Amino acid sequence: MTTVRIAGVGLTPFGAHGDRAGRELFAAAALAAFEDAGVDRDAVDQLNYGNFMGALAEHQGHQAPLMAEAAGLSCPATRYEEACASAGVAVREAVRSIRSGEADVILAGGMERMTTLDTGQATAALAIAADELYEVRAGVTFPSAYALMARAYFDRFGGEREDLAHIAVKNHANALENEYAQYQKEISVDQALDSPPVASPLHLYDACPITDGASAILLVSEEYAEEHGVEAPVSITGSGQGGDNLALQDRQQMAQTPATEIAAEEAYADAEITAQDVDFAEVHDCFTIAEVLAIEGLGLFEPGEGISAAREGQTTPDGETPINLSGGLKAKGHPVGATGGSQIAEITRLLRGDHPNSDAVDDATVGVSHNAGGTVASAVVHVLEVDQ
Amino acid sequence: MTTVRIAGVGLTPFGAHGDRAGRELFAAAALAAFEDAGVDRDAVDQLNYGNFMGALAEHQGHQAPLMAEAAGLSCPATRYEEACASAGVAVREAVRSIRSGEADVILAGGMERMTTLDTGQATAALAIAADELYEVRAGVTFPSAYALMARAYFDRFGGEREDLAHIAVKNHANALENEYAQYQKEISVDQALDSPPVASPLHLYDACPITDGASAILLVSEEYAEEHGVEAPVSITGSGQGGDNLALQDRQQMAQTPATEIAAEEAYADAEITAQDVDFAEVHDCFTIAEVLAIEGLGLFEPGEGISAAREGQTTPDGETPINLSGGLKAKGHPVGATGGSQIAEITRLLRGDHPNSDAVDDATVGVSHNAGGTVASAVVHVLEVDQ
Repeated sequence: MTTVRIAGVGLTPFGAHGDRAGRELFAAAALAAFEDAGVDRDAVDQLNYGNFMGALAEHQGHQAPLMAEAAGLSCPATRYEEACASAGVAVREAVRSIRSGEADVILAGGMERMTTLDTGQATAALAIAADELYEVRAGVTFPSAYALMARAYFDRFGGEREDLAHIAVKNHANALENEYAQYQKEISVDQALDSPPVASPLHLYDACPITDGASAILLVSEEYAEEHGVEAPVSITGSGQGGDNLALQDRQQMAQTPATEIAAEEAYADAEITAQDVDFAEVHDCFTIAEVLAIEGLGLFEPGEGISAAREGQTTPDGETPINLSGGLKAKGHPVGATGGSQIAEITRLLRGDHPNSDAVDDATVGVSHNAGGTVASAVVHVLEVDQ
Repeated sequence: MTTVRIAGVGLTPFGAHGDRAGRELFAAAALAAFEDAGVDRDAVDQLNYGNFMGALAEHQGHQAPLMAEAAGLSCPATRYEEACASAGVAVREAVRSIRSGEADVILAGGMERMTTLDTGQATAALAIAADELYEVRAGVTFPSAYALMARAYFDRFGGEREDLAHIAVKNHANALENEYAQYQKEISVDQALDSPPVASPLHLYDACPITDGASAILLVSEEYAEEHGVEAPVSITGSGQGGDNLALQDRQQMAQTPATEIAAEEAYADAEITAQDVDFAEVHDCFTIAEVLAIEGLGLFEPGEGISAAREGQTTPDGETPINLSGGLKAKGHPVGATGGSQIAEITRLLRGDHPNSDAVDDATVGVSHNAGGTVASAVVHVLEVDQ
């Protein structure tokens, strides 16, 4: 079985790009990936593309062939939709296709265009990732769902709003030098605590923003890289996917995320590592509490110990396990269908040493990405390793 | 590389099921597939699920974990969206995953719920499979797009409305005994010709209906079937996928469908057959002209010769190459995200001898499915063979 190498990565800046069609955004990310890789478009065997709300935000389904055309590709193209984990599954299936020998070169990634919707429309569009019959009709939105999860966590393990505020502060600080981040702006714990409530205990600075953006990752087999002299020091060595019941009410409890645990277990076994080998991670912090659930689900912290990690400095750039050095969804932004690819791109740059925050992980060899859908009814985990 | 066996197939009746949620429809199809297969749900490694317009028709995205729950599965689940070829790509990726050894048992299929929309809403929802910026805003709907393709075909190769009417008549006749068909009703050439115009030269009886329904296919590796004594005489021996520019205006011409040609070439090579070995096929006749384009793209007829095939009896049950013995999309119905799985289910039953039209293909060993997205910007072809 071949090793899957990351030949190149491309991103658009994350933010408000209401003047650019989705196809323009993805084409820009793809162009950047091809330039980074030095691989020709003609070599691409397939496009694996993630998008979540295109039917609502752009009245555009069937985006895979459209994005192939925009990226200058003439290969088969497939769209994957797994809510906020759409690009995660697109990358995962790309890894499997290359390993199986079905493909040598795959462009994987995603795009989302959201800022053309107003906040109410965007909240309603995002809510289609929850259970329409049993959650949404009862008034559930994602801020309120994650608020329930935060309350359940506090009840079970303890913790307080200030712990969550430290996560927001850390992720904003991490994004300061990241030219792709939506917010390159420092915030303080007091600012986070004083921000307007959204769904108690979550306030505005506990939530990621509404974002437009695209990501593209060019994956190649080791044999292709060797044969064509492609410099690709970072590999995807492990991939895992987990699922759970869609509605919160159908879960055993709300203070842990089994889908993440399943995905992590599979990915670590696949890469032949354990959680102890993980040097840093990009995790799905759509809300601050989600970062806590993620780092515990990934086995980086024991249940109940993730809540104080940012406050105690364990997940800051100087800490033992830096989390969301990109700024995370919180500060870098969250163009839903692109996020899973963006995480892989950020880890690749961190491991290659060409990321503004690479210094924080200069001895690191193992980075992990964690991309989640809905209230973690889906989770995809990838292990990335750099040649030493 | 293992052979991919079809252990069981399940369908809901196609038609109007406005009183049943999408999850109920898919659960019913899954139940039927498990009963057909005699395989336990716990054996399933993953769910590959196709759906097209759930965000618009049910305000429900992130359907894969929802459908896994409805089907009683506790495995990872992924949604594939490729417009009307959504289930086709879901099956294709399942074939690749089993062949790679990543999975032994996969449930693949799809669901669409459309009849809760009125005709105008459904036409608008279907139109998101075309190019929003350059086709839909200019007034293109799918009836009008296929009307353009029919005109281009007539201009290039000849043919007339009556040739198309023979296709509708044949497919309605084929559906007469199919208990899953939306229309079990014979029509005449005169009725087809006299039906109201939709987009000239296409009239009402040239178009498939708006349909609710679900399909589920249980795929297993040959080793799994042998080890567990699963009777599975039909295999998927070839898979292919092709793409094209999304908008008609971006194509070289409109009277042929290169995406189908690419998919067929790949699938035939994969199965080590040629078009001459194909005994019968289920093809994507969303409009009568689409059947003509499909059987030519599949290499079953030379360009320009598909148009008269139904009239001359070559594609009827008694003909050399029966096409759409299920009734096709035209008479069986077209619940978009389910169709690609339904075609596989129909071919499986035809090859196993437990289909009402099995007599028409009692010596057959090779059946082919052709599932297309949009105006054939995507196409997926599978080759099915039965043990002799």
